[in-house]
Amino acid sequence: MENAADQPKEPSKSALKKAEKQAKMAADKAAKAAKQAALPVVGGKKTDDIIGITVTKAENFPAWYQEVVLKGEMVEYYQEISGFFVLRPLSMHIWNVIRKWFQDRIELMGVEETSFPMFLSSKSLEKEKDHVEGFAPELAWVTKAGDKDLEVPVAIRPTSEAVMYPYYAKWIRSHRDLPLRLNQWNSVVRWEAKQTTPFLRTREFLWQEGHTAHLTEELAGKEVLEILELYAGVYEQLLAVPVVRGRKTENEKFAGGYYTTTVEGYIPSNGRGIQGATSHCLGQNFSKMFDITVEDPANKGSHIHVWQNSWGLSTRVIGVMIMVHGDDKGLVLPPRIAKTQTILIPVGINKSTTPEDRKKHEEQLDGIRDTLKKAGVRAESDWREGYTPAWKFNDWELKGVPLRIEFGPKDAAKEVVSWARRDTGEKGTIPIADVATKVPELLETIQADMYAKAEKSFREHRLQITKWEDVLPALDDKNVVLIPFCGDGKCEDRIKELTTREDTQPDVPESQKLPSMGMKSLCIPFEQPEGVVAGETDCLSPECQRKAQFWTMFGRSY
Amino acid sequence: MENAADQPKEPSKSALKKAEKQAKMAADKAAKAAKQAALPVVGGKKTDDIIGITVTKAENFPAWYQEVVLKGEMVEYYQEISGFFVLRPLSMHIWNVIRKWFQDRIELMGVEETSFPMFLSSKSLEKEKDHVEGFAPELAWVTKAGDKDLEVPVAIRPTSEAVMYPYYAKWIRSHRDLPLRLNQWNSVVRWEAKQTTPFLRTREFLWQEGHTAHLTEELAGKEVLEILELYAGVYEQLLAVPVVRGRKTENEKFAGGYYTTTVEGYIPSNGRGIQGATSHCLGQNFSKMFDITVEDPANKGSHIHVWQNSWGLSTRVIGVMIMVHGDDKGLVLPPRIAKTQTILIPVGINKSTTPEDRKKHEEQLDGIRDTLKKAGVRAESDWREGYTPAWKFNDWELKGVPLRIEFGPKDAAKEVVSWARRDTGEKGTIPIADVATKVPELLETIQADMYAKAEKSFREHRLQITKWEDVLPALDDKNVVLIPFCGDGKCEDRIKELTTREDTQPDVPESQKLPSMGMKSLCIPFEQPEGVVAGETDCLSPECQRKAQFWTMFGRSY
Repeated sequence: MENAADQPKEPSKSALKKAEKQAKMAADKAAKAAKQAALPVVGGKKTDDIIGITVTKAENFPAWYQEVVLKGEMVEYYQEISGFFVLRPLSMHIWNVIRKWFQDRIELMGVEETSFPMFLSSKSLEKEKDHVEGFAPELAWVTKAGDKDLEVPVAIRPTSEAVMYPYYAKWIRSHRDLPLRLNQWNSVVRWEAKQTTPFLRTREFLWQEGHTAHLTEELAGKEVLEILELYAGVYEQLLAVPVVRGRKTENEKFAGGYYTTTVEGYIPSNGRGIQGATSHCLGQNFSKMFDITVEDPANKGSHIHVWQNSWGLSTRVIGVMIMVHGDDKGLVLPPRIAKTQTILIPVGINKSTTPEDRKKHEEQLDGIRDTLKKAGVRAESDWREGYTPAWKFNDWELKGVPLRIEFGPKDAAKEVVSWARRDTGEKGTIPIADVATKVPELLETIQADMYAKAEKSFREHRLQITKWEDVLPALDDKNVVLIPFCGDGKCEDRIKELTTREDTQPDVPESQKLPSMGMKSLCIPFEQPEGVVAGETDCLSPECQRKAQFWTMFGRSY
Repeated sequence: MENAADQPKEPSKSALKKAEKQAKMAADKAAKAAKQAALPVVGGKKTDDIIGITVTKAENFPAWYQEVVLKGEMVEYYQEISGFFVLRPLSMHIWNVIRKWFQDRIELMGVEETSFPMFLSSKSLEKEKDHVEGFAPELAWVTKAGDKDLEVPVAIRPTSEAVMYPYYAKWIRSHRDLPLRLNQWNSVVRWEAKQTTPFLRTREFLWQEGHTAHLTEELAGKEVLEILELYAGVYEQLLAVPVVRGRKTENEKFAGGYYTTTVEGYIPSNGRGIQGATSHCLGQNFSKMFDITVEDPANKGSHIHVWQNSWGLSTRVIGVMIMVHGDDKGLVLPPRIAKTQTILIPVGINKSTTPEDRKKHEEQLDGIRDTLKKAGVRAESDWREGYTPAWKFNDWELKGVPLRIEFGPKDAAKEVVSWARRDTGEKGTIPIADVATKVPELLETIQADMYAKAEKSFREHRLQITKWEDVLPALDDKNVVLIPFCGDGKCEDRIKELTTREDTQPDVPESQKLPSMGMKSLCIPFEQPEGVVAGETDCLSPECQRKAQFWTMFGRSY
């Protein structure tokens, strides 16, 4: 389903591995400290400095990421088996917002929900050898039930083509049964040998997988793009993450498919591209393997193989969002997907406050919270005792809540609330009477500003390059590049080799070494700038004699 | 989670097995015939008789059930691996209605969503040996990834206590972290050795599992009952299936738990009881095994183990609903959970109808459909060509659609639609002008009538018995029984033996033999009738010298 290339195969370089290992140790240590800090303040001893993130995003991005997802309570490492993670309520909220948004839209398109078993037999696997080759090294095999060996071992689905398509052959008897459009929300298992990263590369992940069958190439192709646009919508409208829509090259397309469309994201901190989600046209390749045919309505008596698509979006999207928006204080969540959009924190209440005043203040603050809830804002108030307001500020900043509202006796006297934006740190006040309209507006402004900032960053780091010697400096400056490219698979392989830096920096400390990773193609963007005339412009590769077909986006990538 | 007893262990008798095998063969044959019949009518050859159910519910209930779930397009048998089933859109719609209803309500209670890995290590399994003993024979073991043996095999969760509770120990640091209430929607695997049945007993099934931790027994106990009431609501309000709320006996409670509450259903066709869903108080048993403690807020310095609950509801509910409501024509779905609530079928359109009249009729019928949709009714119109109205009637009856609306030129002339109820066959007309109000009313009437009918049947077949010699005849008359019972585990085992009929019917044909299955306790109903005085009334078992504690519901069961 999702391209096998989605979870790429090149071994990470030792330097990177070492850094990641150090990062994990630092993260573990910090998490431990944070847990201690999460106990109430004892004897006035302030612990504000301990709960935050201990490395900056700029100085050690992998370590920063691991700390953020742990301390922000998005995931927990599953200690029992490596490569697995627990998704905590903050992550599941985001996934459920995405799920509902996407589900509502595919339902309108006529896609129905199904649930197929999680196992596939070795028999069905053999049917589609080409396709399955990419997944074989990662298949988890059940060989025993209780204390008995199974007669025939079964594999856990890495994707469900081989599970589902025998039934498409059974259910599709006539062109009247087309289109057949089914989708399922489940988890799949790919037993990665490589280093895993929360959300981005994990041995089990949640996703949706859509599998559809159509009468013609045209109808299939129309759906491929409709779905791709929904995937772009998940990134852009919900996660405030810009993506480039395009088609994969022959080298990078889904194994066994016809063509693959993709939305590609960009991680500013390391300049890497990242595949966002893919929508594949499988053509008639699978329908030929699984014998899915109908009588041609235009030509009675002759049979045609149906045209199939498959498309998938996984919890990876959450990782991309965290990497793009997070900062040195922790998570920064776009309002539309945040579980808590606005946190109300009482301030200026201390030992000298009378119980009556305290009660009155409490009622007023919770009243404002309820007004916000009625206005459709996911608002909460933080009445935890034994914590200073400063500690609470840090805690909610760490968790990425988009808007903080502070409310103290001074605010009450002025009939306002004070607010602070998580994304920019900007502060201001709103009259209490206006919160039901002004807070939702402010949240939408935050959403729009977060997208605009990320979009500007991606746009400025997507360089059109027309001289080969400019490629490597551009990559080192954390850009992805658009180059005139012939589209040939071998040429693409060679480009990767040519941009892979050999280890010629023996005297440079690890932390200052330039990245060695070569670039691969990310996509052929649908929006093609001027400047490449197919069949006339030269392919940019210095060793290539062919003419360019299109601008192609290349980059170091996940 | 769900009691291991949920999927009981006693071997099915050979007679039953044989009948089920025959049933499956008949079902397969019929399904094949139905598939052929689903092709358009050719040359006026009518195929109405083939698509229906080929056995009656009364004459061969297991065969009837298998035909209904297959032909009604609820499930497909997964041919590749036995004991697994594909849930088709009609089932998934029902499950999603239940999911949303339940999710909305537990969210209000403060339960948050999570997603834990599907695997557990043998290490964590060892921690809770007592609990795990019941599941061990059904664990599916992954021993290989790709072509490499795993160093330590991992099991697929049969339920998630052992997966989740190590993290409860980590996350619960103080009584301020309580209650901790998490729920997940997923699938679990129990590799049953026994004959499987769609929905009721399958090797993988969908469910939700809630796992919560509380400071006190009282708080835990309150939640147990709140959840049980939601489970009763799923059955009674959505599925129109009556249940009896109660507590399990010591013999039947969840392995390793403190006490189990349950909702118990009843299948009129064979008089068997069936466990509907269970809500367990685990007490402090698991918190002691997994070391989940907090400082006692009332007694600084001393630590207490938290009180835990777990509760689960599975896709089994769909099977119970089908068995209770279905009839000889196929599925009968309660309106609140039906994917299509009302099907509109054009009638009286034939070869002599002019294209203009046809078009006009089409527009009017689809207009009525759209009016219904706007009124919140899930309505569809059936414009399939090449099928007679009678064929369509049968097809939608088979699929259980609660209300059929027929609309022909004669109806149009009278400005009415004609309707037929699926549950009773009752017919009538509604003025077109009133459909937006009258159809929703009619659907709610159908829902209420279906519940009332099922409730009456269960009530009339729940007999209070005070003479031992009346027990077996009552069971043979397809009743469950309420008897005065001492509550003792050994006495319960003996009751089962005493009611198991030995094979003393050698000359009776299989189909006429009386059932041999002994009865087990279903629950101790919360609503206790008069007549048992605890410690005074005798236990009903003829061999028991103890006094009864309560009325207990016993029956043959799934």
